[in-house]
Amino acid sequence: MTSHQFYLDELAQLVQGELIGQSKFKVAALASLEQAQAQDISFVNGEKYLQEAQASKAGVLIVTAALKDQLSHHQNFIVVDHPYLAFAILTHHFEDKVLKRGIEVTAQIADSAIIAENAYIGHYVVIGENCVVGDNTVIQSHVHLDHDVEVGKDCFIDSHVMITGKSKLANRVRIHSNTVIGGEGFGFAPYQGKWNRIVQLGSVQIGNDVRIGSNCSIDRGALDDTIIHDGVIIDNLVQIAHNVQIGENTAIAAKCGIAGSTVIGKNCVFAGAVGVVGHINIADNVTITGMSMVSKSISEAGSYSSGTGQFETNKWKRTVVRLRQLADVPLTKLVKQIDHMQAQIESIESTLKSRK
Amino acid sequence: MTSHQFYLDELAQLVQGELIGQSKFKVAALASLEQAQAQDISFVNGEKYLQEAQASKAGVLIVTAALKDQLSHHQNFIVVDHPYLAFAILTHHFEDKVLKRGIEVTAQIADSAIIAENAYIGHYVVIGENCVVGDNTVIQSHVHLDHDVEVGKDCFIDSHVMITGKSKLANRVRIHSNTVIGGEGFGFAPYQGKWNRIVQLGSVQIGNDVRIGSNCSIDRGALDDTIIHDGVIIDNLVQIAHNVQIGENTAIAAKCGIAGSTVIGKNCVFAGAVGVVGHINIADNVTITGMSMVSKSISEAGSYSSGTGQFETNKWKRTVVRLRQLADVPLTKLVKQIDHMQAQIESIESTLKSRK
Amino acid sequence: MTSHQFYLDELAQLVQGELIGQSKFKVAALASLEQAQAQDISFVNGEKYLQEAQASKAGVLIVTAALKDQLSHHQNFIVVDHPYLAFAILTHHFEDKVLKRGIEVTAQIADSAIIAENAYIGHYVVIGENCVVGDNTVIQSHVHLDHDVEVGKDCFIDSHVMITGKSKLANRVRIHSNTVIGGEGFGFAPYQGKWNRIVQLGSVQIGNDVRIGSNCSIDRGALDDTIIHDGVIIDNLVQIAHNVQIGENTAIAAKCGIAGSTVIGKNCVFAGAVGVVGHINIADNVTITGMSMVSKSISEAGSYSSGTGQFETNKWKRTVVRLRQLADVPLTKLVKQIDHMQAQIESIESTLKSRK
Repeated sequence: MTSHQFYLDELAQLVQGELIGQSKFKVAALASLEQAQAQDISFVNGEKYLQEAQASKAGVLIVTAALKDQLSHHQNFIVVDHPYLAFAILTHHFEDKVLKRGIEVTAQIADSAIIAENAYIGHYVVIGENCVVGDNTVIQSHVHLDHDVEVGKDCFIDSHVMITGKSKLANRVRIHSNTVIGGEGFGFAPYQGKWNRIVQLGSVQIGNDVRIGSNCSIDRGALDDTIIHDGVIIDNLVQIAHNVQIGENTAIAAKCGIAGSTVIGKNCVFAGAVGVVGHINIADNVTITGMSMVSKSISEAGSYSSGTGQFETNKWKRTVVRLRQLADVPLTKLVKQIDHMQAQIESIESTLKSRK
Repeated sequence: MTSHQFYLDELAQLVQGELIGQSKFKVAALASLEQAQAQDISFVNGEKYLQEAQASKAGVLIVTAALKDQLSHHQNFIVVDHPYLAFAILTHHFEDKVLKRGIEVTAQIADSAIIAENAYIGHYVVIGENCVVGDNTVIQSHVHLDHDVEVGKDCFIDSHVMITGKSKLANRVRIHSNTVIGGEGFGFAPYQGKWNRIVQLGSVQIGNDVRIGSNCSIDRGALDDTIIHDGVIIDNLVQIAHNVQIGENTAIAAKCGIAGSTVIGKNCVFAGAVGVVGHINIADNVTITGMSMVSKSISEAGSYSSGTGQFETNKWKRTVVRLRQLADVPLTKLVKQIDHMQAQIESIESTLKSRK
Repeated sequence: MTSHQFYLDELAQLVQGELIGQSKFKVAALASLEQAQAQDISFVNGEKYLQEAQASKAGVLIVTAALKDQLSHHQNFIVVDHPYLAFAILTHHFEDKVLKRGIEVTAQIADSAIIAENAYIGHYVVIGENCVVGDNTVIQSHVHLDHDVEVGKDCFIDSHVMITGKSKLANRVRIHSNTVIGGEGFGFAPYQGKWNRIVQLGSVQIGNDVRIGSNCSIDRGALDDTIIHDGVIIDNLVQIAHNVQIGENTAIAAKCGIAGSTVIGKNCVFAGAVGVVGHINIADNVTITGMSMVSKSISEAGSYSSGTGQFETNKWKRTVVRLRQLADVPLTKLVKQIDHMQAQIESIESTLKSRK
């Protein structure tokens, strides 16, 4: 899938692994176990892939020592403690990198903006007054940095991204296409049946090593800032409302939405399409399973869920009929009543027996 | 957070409030109670913020008369009936406004388009045949107005917005970045296992004072128009399908989706991520709580909900086991049966007593 | 709504229908039953629209033979087996087509890119190295085709679309505004509390006649490709994660999300806002109702659901109280216990009777 070529000993060294087999085996590509051909390298991510690994045509496998002993069909291995991590490292070497430097002639850059000499500014980029773009940062075509936006070093901002609201991005931040950072938060004061717009005066702060997917909306704060801390990773089509704070290394999967002023801890994992109400706090190390609604603060680490998986529709319809009755069925009281009735019946039976 | 400076008497006048304290106190910024410094003005939005207000370093507080009497630590106040509204009004004065006028040389504007003289057309904007842009309207960079699109006066259209399908926008409309207005509705006639595209011939009509967030999709109608009435406010990542109608001053939070041909009343409030099926009617003054699914018409004003907040995952798993049994548990009948059994037991007990 | 005019016999011929009435009746527009005026043509999509059809002012109705016999107020008809399909066909003839050819001078096209002579490349389009654009394809303004992207014949790519990750699109593909194809998948190897980015090396393959709405994100595969097969139709704001495969002619409504590596069959229909977890398989001919969560593989064709429609909020709150008790209520066991108690009571009553 790529045109890079490496010798096996080079790859082993890149991941600090132990080479078993032919050190000068020429590796053509990284591939999945299923699609790998004889010149490809693949990886075995745990016991459950053993059968697939045995069947794979891959010329080299990245494995743990324990996995290696169970793989008799292969001759070339890189042995590491963490094959998935080793695979992640190698993807960077097999990438088709296009080194981009300089400013395309069609870019419109305000005189007061400061662009590092070895940054890349793509075609039709528009950069406003007082913006700053750091070393080695790549800004792809059609991006708009509105006035007073700062982007750090080694960042990658993909096409059609809009950064506004005086947002500040630290270093090694990646933002994928068509995402909007610093758009106006949804703040209105209702009065006499109309919505009075609250101009949003806060900003967005994005830490180091943050990754944000495509088509996301991350709004600027009303007065204080919206803050995404170091190491946070966010997938596509995610909404982060004004004044949200997300702690270090938290992962947010696609289609999640976090309402205004909610504070999320460190090292959390939100699966896809989770919704979180506004003005709550979520502790560190909280996992939320897919499509859950988080309607109250969570003060203890752990896993939380709501929503059910699919039912066959006819069964689901009958279930919903029961659910609609549930409000009027005092479950806990009924259980007690049944227990009490059981005791009464037994007492009666015993009375009858004694009178026989 | 901003570089504007006002005297306290100026601010009091702007919100028609009563000034208490130093009329020539110099106010540096609007700030939250928590972040405010000695030169800042903040607001107290009800009794529940009293403690925070007492602790705030803000130099001035916007309060009601009742709240004022309970705040002993502060000396400068603006007293109004509606502090939140007063705050909303002041945000407009503390905004860093960049007055933009004229047409950037890189804009591509069809000869037949009519652009008001004091509009602003940003870099790399493309405006097609027969478009109209009204007075004082700001169109930011990279916007595309396809042919026959009309935008009224005092509008703000942010970067990368696409307006197509001959959409017509009235006055004071705000549309945030990367939103698509008038895209083709999802209409297909199934025939012999394939989907036959129905070219969408309707348009989108957007009323006065409508606000639409970033990354929204509002589709043109199939034959008739999709209609967003005056004063509607819509947050980010919202889907409005073809032929939907939304009544005046209704608010739709982020990540909602409204399916085709549904008609929504006036003054409704939809919290985040609500889904509404197609071809239904929703009355005026309806509130839908977050993440609810609206699957049937709603004919009466009121609040409606579905979906549950989070459970600890292990408890939730046990709950789902019960839910999957529920279809076969005739709840209402069981309750009656238990009542009947209770009566039988009592009758038996009474019989036994009488025979003692 | 359009400026095209046709004689009735022309339209009848276009849909291969039987003309009843004035063959030289001049038809001004296609319109809905409700909005149609005397010169318009409308269609009757089944018995349930009969009353509306009777009341319609439309000058011509497209109907089945059976419907025609029940419509006494009208004189002009086109009789066909499938009125909705005939309507779909006619929309193509009433469309205001703007024939676009050639390359706008502001387009930036790499020397190595190959653009078919009769394609259209809009203003401010950026096309990278080694891209290919086929015959009759229209690429609207501000699109970015990153390097090594291929777009087939007769495609329509609307404004601000980004296609990257070496994606390959076949023929007659339509992609609406602000959609991102081939963005980097959400792949990270966790290690020592941090997320290590996995560079995505796979691509996206899109088959013939695929339609993708606005603001969608379709990610490139990690190693293998993400694949959208022929005839798939996708609505707005949809997330398709890395390595997903979607079978022929499957329809995916707005706001759905499909997590990584899931394989979906042919001819499926997913209603709005459905979520599907990763690494599962869904059979052919599966329907999923709106807002359902699909958490396990589905091996049999049929309809599947989860999630409930709206309740009045107060009733819903009481329902949730019960739901939160449900984990500790052994429903199936209780039903058996009640049956058993009923039998005991009857036995006691019979004993008492016999001893009277």
